Amino acid sequence: MSEYTSRDASGASVGIVEKKYFTFARKPTEALVLESGTRLGPVTVAYETYGELSPNKDNAVLVLHALTGDCHAAGYYSKADAKPGWWENMVGPGKGIDTDRYFVICSSILGSCGGTTGPCSTNPATGKPYGLDFPVVTVGDMVEVQKKLMDHLGIERLLGVVGGSLGGMQVLEWSLRYPDRVAGVIALATTLRHSALAIAFNEISRQAIMADPNWRDGHYYDGEKPNTGLAVARMIGHVTYLSDAAMRRKFGRRLQSKGDFSFQFDDIDFQVESYLLHQGTKFVERFDANSFLYVTKAADYFDLEQRGEANSAVKAFARARASFLVVSFTSDWLYPTYQSRELVRALKKNRLDVSFCEIKADSGHDAFLVPNKRLSRLIANFLEKVQSENDS
Amino acid sequence: MSEYTSRDASGASVGIVEKKYFTFARKPTEALVLESGTRLGPVTVAYETYGELSPNKDNAVLVLHALTGDCHAAGYYSKADAKPGWWENMVGPGKGIDTDRYFVICSSILGSCGGTTGPCSTNPATGKPYGLDFPVVTVGDMVEVQKKLMDHLGIERLLGVVGGSLGGMQVLEWSLRYPDRVAGVIALATTLRHSALAIAFNEISRQAIMADPNWRDGHYYDGEKPNTGLAVARMIGHVTYLSDAAMRRKFGRRLQSKGDFSFQFDDIDFQVESYLLHQGTKFVERFDANSFLYVTKAADYFDLEQRGEANSAVKAFARARASFLVVSFTSDWLYPTYQSRELVRALKKNRLDVSFCEIKADSGHDAFLVPNKRLSRLIANFLEKVQSENDS
Repeated sequence: MSEYTSRDASGASVGIVEKKYFTFARKPTEALVLESGTRLGPVTVAYETYGELSPNKDNAVLVLHALTGDCHAAGYYSKADAKPGWWENMVGPGKGIDTDRYFVICSSILGSCGGTTGPCSTNPATGKPYGLDFPVVTVGDMVEVQKKLMDHLGIERLLGVVGGSLGGMQVLEWSLRYPDRVAGVIALATTLRHSALAIAFNEISRQAIMADPNWRDGHYYDGEKPNTGLAVARMIGHVTYLSDAAMRRKFGRRLQSKGDFSFQFDDIDFQVESYLLHQGTKFVERFDANSFLYVTKAADYFDLEQRGEANSAVKAFARARASFLVVSFTSDWLYPTYQSRELVRALKKNRLDVSFCEIKADSGHDAFLVPNKRLSRLIANFLEKVQSENDS
Repeated sequence: MSEYTSRDASGASVGIVEKKYFTFARKPTEALVLESGTRLGPVTVAYETYGELSPNKDNAVLVLHALTGDCHAAGYYSKADAKPGWWENMVGPGKGIDTDRYFVICSSILGSCGGTTGPCSTNPATGKPYGLDFPVVTVGDMVEVQKKLMDHLGIERLLGVVGGSLGGMQVLEWSLRYPDRVAGVIALATTLRHSALAIAFNEISRQAIMADPNWRDGHYYDGEKPNTGLAVARMIGHVTYLSDAAMRRKFGRRLQSKGDFSFQFDDIDFQVESYLLHQGTKFVERFDANSFLYVTKAADYFDLEQRGEANSAVKAFARARASFLVVSFTSDWLYPTYQSRELVRALKKNRLDVSFCEIKADSGHDAFLVPNKRLSRLIANFLEKVQSENDS
C-alpha cells in the first residue's frame, strides 16, 4: 500500500511496542502441512500486541495485514522512531480499533519478510536462505500460522478479525476455516477471488523482478539484490492502489522542478514520475523481492468460489457463523465494489448477519489505510455490537 | 494496442498494398525544427495510401495511428501475407472509412520504428543508429512531418483526419496547427492532456526498459536487445488497454492447462498470465525499445490546455475551424469518457460543430480498434456529412 505513515491527528498512540516471536513445528513430525502438500518447519511468527487481554480472554481482535505490510500495525519501537506502525490511524486508545477495550494482535504473514518465516529465512536443510526453495504458500496457509499463534496465546475465540485487501482475504478464510473461533469479521476493500485484472498486474510485477539479472533464480542473498526489478514491481502495484481522481488531485500534470519539459530521458519531468521513483527506491530498502513473488502468488490463488467441495461462494459460506462487516470504496478499481457485493450476496443467502457499506473516497484501493472517520466509526460500532452480543 | 489482427467479417479489403517513402530536410538549411528547438534532418516518412485521389484532391482522409501502430493500416503486403493492416475492419471498400469514396493515407509517426525516422534510424553525424541521441519529439512534431507529406502529395485540405488514443491527440493537434487544412476531425478514445495515471503507467514502462541491462543507455543496436524490459513494458501497456470486464470475459480465473495450481514460479498458472507473456514476446519482434521511450514521452507531453499562449482548452480551440466527431468508450479507463467530455465542452464553447458519442463497450481502451458496427457507421456518416458540406 502506498502510505503506511498516515498519522492520526489526535496523537493518541499505543506508544512503545515490541516485536515478539513464536516458533512452532520444531520437530519434523510437527511440520506445518501446506495446501500444496509440502511440509514446512520450523515456522516462526513475528507479532505485536496492543492493549490488555481480558481475564476470560474474550476481547482479542486480530489484525491481518496486506501484501507488503507487517506485524507493526501501531505504535513506535523507540522514542526516536520517526514512523509509527502502518495502521496507527485505526489502532490505538479511543480509535476505531480501541486498544483501551480490545487486545489487538497483528502478526507478519507467512512468506513475507516481516520476521515470520519466508523465502529469506534460513532453510534448515542447507543453512542458507530458502530463496525459491521456499514452498509456495496460500492465504489458507497464512491463516493456519495465525491460528497456531492464537493457540499459543490461549485465545480460544477471537472477538474480531479485521483486514483489508490481502488482509481481507485472510479475514474471509478465517471465517470459513475456523467458524467457531471468530465472532466478528471485518473485510475491507477485498474480494471473494482475485480477478484476471489483479492477477495480470501481479504477474507483470513478478516478471519485472525475475527479469532483473540480480535476481538469479531467487538466490541473491549473498550478493546484489534485484532492486531495479523490485522497484518496477512496486511502482506497478502503487499505481493500482491509487485512483485516477487521487492522482489528478495529488499530482495532475505538475512538473517536478522546471518551468518546461526536459526533452531528456534521464531527467524527471512530472511530479508523478518523481513520486513513483521515490516509492520504488524506498520500498527496496524494506522489502524482499522473493517475498513479493510469494505474497502476490498467494493473492492470485485466492478464490473462495472454487474451494474444493464448494464450487460456489454461497456454498462456501454455509460453514460461516460470524457476523460480518464488509466495506468497499468507490474509487477502488483493483477490488471494485461489485466484488464486495458478490461477497455480501453470498453471506446473505446463508442468512448470516452482514452489514455492508460502500464508502465514497477518491483515494482508490488505498482508501482503507487512509484516515477516514466513517471507516473508524463503522469498525468501532461493529466491534462494540459483536462484543455486546457475545456478552449476552 | 492489443489486437491489430481483428479481421473484418465481410472480407472486403483494399487488397495488396505497398509501403512508400518520402524524404525531406535533406539539406541542413531545410532541417525540421522540433518543439524542443532541436533541428532534425533528413526525415523520411513511411506511408501507405488506399483508394484514389479525386481530380480536385478533395477526398483525402488521413489516418493517424496509436502508440505502437504503423503506416500499415489496411490490406496485405502479398498474397501470402497472413495478417492485414491494423485497422482492416475500418479501412476498406464499403467500410467505415470507405476506400471506394476516399483517398486514405496513413504514415508511421516520427520517433517510432515503422519506417519513419526514429531512434533506430541512422544518425547522419555518426553513421550509426541514433539511439538516445535522437531528439525527444512531440505530438506537434509528428503532425509537422505529416503536414510535409500532405504538401508532397499535393493535398491542400484534408477531408478528414481520424485517429484513436495517441492518434487522436495528433488529430486534435492537426485541428489547431492547420485549422484551414482539415475539414473533419475524428477523435477516438483520446484526451486533451495526458493524465497523471497515464503518465505513471508510461513512466513505469520506460523504467522497465531502462532497467534491462541490454538497454545500455539506448545503444544496443549492435548487440542483444533489451527484450525482457520491453516485454514487461508491453505487458503493462496491454493491461491498461483492456478492462476488468473484458479480462473477466476473456480469461476469468481459467487455468492454463492443468487441473490445479502449479505451486511453482516457473510454471504458468492462469490463462491471463500466458496471454500477457505471449503478447510481450510477440511485441519485441516488431517494436524497438527506444521507440517505445520516445512515443510514450510524446504522449506524456501532450497537453492542449497548457499550450504556450492559451492556458485553457477553450482558448486553445478558438483557432479551430473543423467539424468534430468525438467518441469515447464506456470501459476505457486510460482515457475515460469524462476526458472526452472536457474536449467536447471546449469545442462547444467555441461554437464549433461537434458530435459526441460514448459507445457502450466492455473492451476498454482497445475498443476503438475492435470491429464495432456503431463506430463504423458513426465515422462513415460523419465523413459523408463533411464531404457534402464541403461540396456545397
